[in-house]
Amino acid sequence: MEGLTMKLLEEKIVNDGVIKSGNVLKVDSFLNHQIDVPFVAELGKELKRLFADRNITKILTIEASGIGIACVAAMYFGVPVVFAKKSSGSNMDKDVYFTQIYSYTHSKTNDVVVSKRFLSKNDHVLIIDDFLANGCALEGLIDIVRQSGGTVEGVGVAVEKGFQGGGDKLRKAGYNLHSLAIIDKMDAKTNTVVFRHEEE
Amino acid sequence: MEGLTMKLLEEKIVNDGVIKSGNVLKVDSFLNHQIDVPFVAELGKELKRLFADRNITKILTIEASGIGIACVAAMYFGVPVVFAKKSSGSNMDKDVYFTQIYSYTHSKTNDVVVSKRFLSKNDHVLIIDDFLANGCALEGLIDIVRQSGGTVEGVGVAVEKGFQGGGDKLRKAGYNLHSLAIIDKMDAKTNTVVFRHEEE
Repeated sequence: MEGLTMKLLEEKIVNDGVIKSGNVLKVDSFLNHQIDVPFVAELGKELKRLFADRNITKILTIEASGIGIACVAAMYFGVPVVFAKKSSGSNMDKDVYFTQIYSYTHSKTNDVVVSKRFLSKNDHVLIIDDFLANGCALEGLIDIVRQSGGTVEGVGVAVEKGFQGGGDKLRKAGYNLHSLAIIDKMDAKTNTVVFRHEEE
Repeated sequence: MEGLTMKLLEEKIVNDGVIKSGNVLKVDSFLNHQIDVPFVAELGKELKRLFADRNITKILTIEASGIGIACVAAMYFGVPVVFAKKSSGSNMDKDVYFTQIYSYTHSKTNDVVVSKRFLSKNDHVLIIDDFLANGCALEGLIDIVRQSGGTVEGVGVAVEKGFQGGGDKLRKAGYNLHSLAIIDKMDAKTNTVVFRHEEE
């Protein structure tokens, strides 16, 4: 079953993903911009299976492209989603957890906030995002959970660009990370993708 | 059944919503920022019931706060979600539908885009958003569907601020609009909300 979901995602990446120069992979036809919800529901079910042994009270993600997969997955976990907001700074609530996340895509640092009302030391948090590359976004979300005193029970990702190292850094740090597809190599010229297959 | 969902939403607005001066209603504990997915699932089911007679091929919303309810509703419709993106202008794809939406909350006009790959004349579109006040966001989304040549089958909204007039303008223009709760009056001083109850 798990193998099937991963295989379906790999096929979708190969068939519908677009590789661009600079190691950019666009999956905006099914994962962000357009979200193929019936397909993403399969990913959500698989995340529930992978984290079935954890008592999750809340799913944390970051706007905008993490919200879709987080909310669909939350249907299977039966818990609320909190999404971290990129703050303009001007209308900032004082009662927020605050962190900064560098975006390589846009070459800028975003101020990111979560209201203190929605995360506490009693929370057991599953962090979900659509993409994992260098890991800056996930490290920012982990920092926010740390500030709240809550527990990071795991990190679930749809597509990891394994060759950019963010995932291995999180694994080395001891986080319970599952990526549903891991890309070890991709080549815009030949339009090929090589996936990593790990033992569970 | 329908009455029950509307009643649950009205109770949630009264119990968990926060009225602020300037006719601001914060429902960020269950609809945006934090999304109470098991609760929003009831709203999604209700939207499916209300638009059951329409052959919907796609749900259109706008980032960021529309994505959650749109994706949860899409679980019941079995269709993809497309979310319109607020564009910085710099990395704009040429192959996009483009419109401008004025935000009263932030007193600024946002450039908003949807890739032409994800909406076409064959699409029968349900537009979903978390909030309806003056209607600028929904009018922008309707404009995008018009550019694509597709059909707006309906507009589904969680919370309408009826006294701001955007909903009635859309109804008058003939759109098949359903708001799950309509607020006719609210008062920050007395912390009271008056709902509109229409015949279906």
